Amino acid sequence: MKELIDLIDKKLDEYMPVNYPEDIFKAMKYTLMLPGKRLRPVMCIETARLLGADIDKVLPAACAIEMLHVQSLIHDDLPCMDNDDFRRGKPSNHKVFGEANAVLAGDALLTFAPQLIIEKSKGLSAEQVLRVIHEYTKFAGAYGLIAGQVVDIESEGGKLVKSPEETLDFIHLNKTAVLFRLAVRIGAIIANAQENVIDEFDNFAKKFGLAFQIYDDIMDEISSFEELGKTAGKDKNSGKLTYVSLYGLEEAENKFRCLIKECYDIIDKYKSDIFKEILDKLSQRIGSK
Amino acid sequence: MKELIDLIDKKLDEYMPVNYPEDIFKAMKYTLMLPGKRLRPVMCIETARLLGADIDKVLPAACAIEMLHVQSLIHDDLPCMDNDDFRRGKPSNHKVFGEANAVLAGDALLTFAPQLIIEKSKGLSAEQVLRVIHEYTKFAGAYGLIAGQVVDIESEGGKLVKSPEETLDFIHLNKTAVLFRLAVRIGAIIANAQENVIDEFDNFAKKFGLAFQIYDDIMDEISSFEELGKTAGKDKNSGKLTYVSLYGLEEAENKFRCLIKECYDIIDKYKSDIFKEILDKLSQRIGSK
Repeated sequence: MKELIDLIDKKLDEYMPVNYPEDIFKAMKYTLMLPGKRLRPVMCIETARLLGADIDKVLPAACAIEMLHVQSLIHDDLPCMDNDDFRRGKPSNHKVFGEANAVLAGDALLTFAPQLIIEKSKGLSAEQVLRVIHEYTKFAGAYGLIAGQVVDIESEGGKLVKSPEETLDFIHLNKTAVLFRLAVRIGAIIANAQENVIDEFDNFAKKFGLAFQIYDDIMDEISSFEELGKTAGKDKNSGKLTYVSLYGLEEAENKFRCLIKECYDIIDKYKSDIFKEILDKLSQRIGSK
Repeated sequence: MKELIDLIDKKLDEYMPVNYPEDIFKAMKYTLMLPGKRLRPVMCIETARLLGADIDKVLPAACAIEMLHVQSLIHDDLPCMDNDDFRRGKPSNHKVFGEANAVLAGDALLTFAPQLIIEKSKGLSAEQVLRVIHEYTKFAGAYGLIAGQVVDIESEGGKLVKSPEETLDFIHLNKTAVLFRLAVRIGAIIANAQENVIDEFDNFAKKFGLAFQIYDDIMDEISSFEELGKTAGKDKNSGKLTYVSLYGLEEAENKFRCLIKECYDIIDKYKSDIFKEILDKLSQRIGSK
């Protein structure tokens, strides 16, 4: 997996130029190039590979998903949102470039990502590229990622339109699972997969995303700043709605293990070392606590 | 033109739903539905009509450009940017929905606009839709609108990488002219126009955009809040780089008249009542001062 992450880092660097005005490109590139697990592009590329697509076909779209993810991190960290001064162990974007540039860097990544897909994707039909962009717009916007973020903010303010359980599901599905779903869906679409195969990977990503978010909730509860690379205990201190706050630590760990088991079951037949490694790593850390 | 604006308003209302979570959709819709001149969609539709395209083909793309424009207004008005409490005579988005929702409403419009083009455009080939989206991503992002905004903010802080004249040109071209260019380019592309015709309309829009911004600079200098619908005299008070501050009021008016004349010359052969009306209205107001 290390090799794949290195390739993604190299491509992100290559795809993200620094032009005039430098401040905006540097701000975009700063958070993008902070070392990360690159889980979403890895899962996008691996899905495409498992379904028979050449890696060159999928690299631009995979990197575009990381750009979308980074955009959401930059805006999430803003003082008017989560107000987090650190990201991936470094000062967050607005601490380095100022709030105005951080807002604009996020905006710019949001439009640069589909631009990259259109300009750099090789060997795809216009219909395929268009479907990829369509998925991108649906999952990135008010029907996906942003919906999750809005309900998250509302719930922090104590405003719940639905029950706490439904609200939490909605947040986790839309704020976290949505980009994993987008990643595998795009990978499968680029590999020209059948609809039922796209759905199968989508289902995997949905469960993985929920497990990933519960893991995050658990870690926020029990970790230090050093382990997390960002301010720890924020959820607990802000009285935030999380799996841990709603169901307790033990039940959260049970739910997590159950979802990971379902993920293994779905992906088993594809004999993917990469997906196995991702699931192993995530589950071992909870297991060892 | 009134009929066309009414149609655009009706379509914007129809295209922009209010789903769960309502706060984000309402925030998106609030600024979008404030009464405006709808100049960009009008120019997009009129260009397509002059070049032979049916109005149904172009309406979604035209409305998408208005959404992009509104997105930039919402983010521009944020406290960390221009910090403007009013827009189109009403409280700006963050004053009504809070800063977090205003940031997210802008983000959501930025992805909803191309989603709308993909989902609602009728009778276009996949290649055409893809080209429209490509133009959208290029002009909306760090190579267009956002570049203009960044250099504008930098220049306010006294940071000039290029000469004041070059900097001002860059800001006006990218912050203002860029969406008029996008509007007519997309209209022409949807009408399947030849490249030289696309360039001709692009050239018109560039000149119109510059004239429009100089008009805005002049109005900021000489108008009241009631005339402007937003806080007046902000540019002057903040020592902002504008045509008026750089060249003086008389030279700005001369430049404005010169650009408007060139616009008439380019568009004359198309015998467009709509474009004539737009140019007449803009130039009469400066003429009468």
